[in-house]
Amino acid sequence: MIQRPRGTRDFLPDEMEKRRHYEGILRDTAKTFGFREIATPIFEESELFILRSGPNVLKELYAFMDKGDREIALRPEMTAPAIRMFVNEMSNEPKPIKIFYFGQCFRYERPQSGRYREFFQFGAELIGNPNAESDAEIIAMAASMIKALGLHDYKIRIGHIGVLRKRIADAGVPKERTAEVLQKLDKKLYDEARPLLKEMDVSDADIDSIFTLTETVGDVSVLSQVEGEAGDYLRQLVDLLDAMGVRDVEIDLGVVRGLDYYTGMVFEAEAPSLGAEKQICGGGSYTLSELFGGEKVFSTGFAVGFDRILLAMEKEGQTYTPKGIDAYVLCVNDDVRRKASEIVSMLRANGVCADIDIMGRKMQKALKYASSVNAKYAVIVGPKELEEGCVTLRDMSSGDQRNVKIGELSSCFRC
Amino acid sequence: MIQRPRGTRDFLPDEMEKRRHYEGILRDTAKTFGFREIATPIFEESELFILRSGPNVLKELYAFMDKGDREIALRPEMTAPAIRMFVNEMSNEPKPIKIFYFGQCFRYERPQSGRYREFFQFGAELIGNPNAESDAEIIAMAASMIKALGLHDYKIRIGHIGVLRKRIADAGVPKERTAEVLQKLDKKLYDEARPLLKEMDVSDADIDSIFTLTETVGDVSVLSQVEGEAGDYLRQLVDLLDAMGVRDVEIDLGVVRGLDYYTGMVFEAEAPSLGAEKQICGGGSYTLSELFGGEKVFSTGFAVGFDRILLAMEKEGQTYTPKGIDAYVLCVNDDVRRKASEIVSMLRANGVCADIDIMGRKMQKALKYASSVNAKYAVIVGPKELEEGCVTLRDMSSGDQRNVKIGELSSCFRC
Repeated sequence: MIQRPRGTRDFLPDEMEKRRHYEGILRDTAKTFGFREIATPIFEESELFILRSGPNVLKELYAFMDKGDREIALRPEMTAPAIRMFVNEMSNEPKPIKIFYFGQCFRYERPQSGRYREFFQFGAELIGNPNAESDAEIIAMAASMIKALGLHDYKIRIGHIGVLRKRIADAGVPKERTAEVLQKLDKKLYDEARPLLKEMDVSDADIDSIFTLTETVGDVSVLSQVEGEAGDYLRQLVDLLDAMGVRDVEIDLGVVRGLDYYTGMVFEAEAPSLGAEKQICGGGSYTLSELFGGEKVFSTGFAVGFDRILLAMEKEGQTYTPKGIDAYVLCVNDDVRRKASEIVSMLRANGVCADIDIMGRKMQKALKYASSVNAKYAVIVGPKELEEGCVTLRDMSSGDQRNVKIGELSSCFRC
Repeated sequence: MIQRPRGTRDFLPDEMEKRRHYEGILRDTAKTFGFREIATPIFEESELFILRSGPNVLKELYAFMDKGDREIALRPEMTAPAIRMFVNEMSNEPKPIKIFYFGQCFRYERPQSGRYREFFQFGAELIGNPNAESDAEIIAMAASMIKALGLHDYKIRIGHIGVLRKRIADAGVPKERTAEVLQKLDKKLYDEARPLLKEMDVSDADIDSIFTLTETVGDVSVLSQVEGEAGDYLRQLVDLLDAMGVRDVEIDLGVVRGLDYYTGMVFEAEAPSLGAEKQICGGGSYTLSELFGGEKVFSTGFAVGFDRILLAMEKEGQTYTPKGIDAYVLCVNDDVRRKASEIVSMLRANGVCADIDIMGRKMQKALKYASSVNAKYAVIVGPKELEEGCVTLRDMSSGDQRNVKIGELSSCFRC
């Protein structure tokens, strides 16, 4: 038997309906924030992802040569493609540009709980300006999405990569080695960060001060420990978020994000119920366009791990009930089959989700099938009722039956 | 500058909104017919597609070895994955199973008008029964979709592969060479089919009779030329379609479909405006499950070439007007910025698509931006109006302005 590839999934109808429902909530929320959807190809030149994330990303890419000997890769994320598209086709449009996208991404890694080789991301980019207003838009939208989905137990943590970068530079870390240090700090690998910093002649006092900074967590008052513009910036951001009704955020200067291209604010949302893989959303302000051959343009963006956030909702006991169909039409005998076809077509043309028996089943078996597809009503077409221009409408949950004129049937489903 | 891979596309916001609109029409129509959505991975084992289409398909596949040395391929179509999924996970569910899917497919070929390396297909499979009722469901749904999209100039042609297969067998073509002959006839390559048939010792009279059969086109009366069950079957099918209000179909015994796995009814829809690449939809009844290791189950299915049908609609002059946003909030000065943030958040929470100036633009420039994003209204927040608990609501098309109480603002957008 041929199986689907490892780390991928099939989505059966109930699961798919649920996913589309929640995808719709993300999509609608993005639209209320004035974001508009775009789409980019499933694969890109590998170079695009290397430019964004460094050569290490190749290990995790589904990369291959196409038949024209071009190095292409299935996209592991969608920020780089979105900015590539902006550079190629949207750079002259009025700023800011507010775009969102939803789709499959691919990562070659060992499949585990909540991590798949084919996974789904929802993301948004606000392109055009580096200011607290832009960052507030993005964080407020992320918060609205989490709320709209109905997730209760989550935390949004906001930091500023500039604070840490400055402290690291002041401590004497050479610019070209900053990324290395940040990567260790991002993962809180202090045991590995210390020897690395010592090797760069950073003093123990400075190392301690760097580590302390990454553990600075709390409400806006912790910013008193932060000198310079970054503190003022975050205070302004928190104030704007407050005006926007987003008050459940935490300052966490240990939010580092593992990537070089972030320029200022960085943030993450997590669902503690997920344990080690608890991050459901992350983003920040960055520049990428100049790496892809465009002008330097400041942006703020974020991505939601769609699979993971659904998993978090499931862990909270949230369930989704599939809608089922409105009407299942069945025939008392073969003579009424043509009429039954007319009736089901009339219902469908009126927007009623309607199905019809095509297996020639007897009444009891047909009703059993109607139950299995969650039909709300059975429409029983019989020769006696037809003589009076009627059919029998059966409520599938109560079993109540009544005769309805065919001309009035569609209106029974408008409620 | 990094470009997107050849034969792929980026979809910018206006185009994407249009595509989602029409995708929604296909999706809604499928639901009224009682079909439910599924999704399968972007890639599968290459073997799956070879089993369906023969080894020749490899030439057109984006096939590659993954890091575990498995031969995988980006899906060139979605019938095989859907049936693979049915065999793996749905084979015990009550029949019929009615599923649909929408997504990207990939074909390595020279890009040309209406043909892309990454293209989009909408398809549906009705699994469980080989009868005229099943076939009628599928054809009626295809017809409803084309109509719902608003395409005017199209033709639906219905044939029966059994008729041609029987005639070919009667003429003495060995069973194992039938596919070869059908492929030539599918493409109407009579000049190539004749020597091929002669090589198999088929007489000129029989060849002529085969060719004549493939040119048998017209209304249901042409079926008088068809002996055997297939003619009766098609007559019953046309009668059912008539009951379902689908009357604009043509019998065309030259509809062959290039693939081995079709078992009976085959159909195609075309949009003549597209010229040589005019096919917008095709399908038929088939069995595939046994090739993938399952039991033999009869199905009927079809796929719509989404890109091509959109192109046909465009050629007919059909246009789609993007919706734009409801409200664009702008500040008369910096002092009201916090209040403006509150107002935009209130609108969004009430489901209004609202945006806010984040560039600190002066009034005239901000209004120009609001026009560029098709805002219906500008909400102007000024200190004087705020004193009275009001903002100014400006109709962007007429330029009319009026003061509105903040508490009543959201309701201005509910119409």
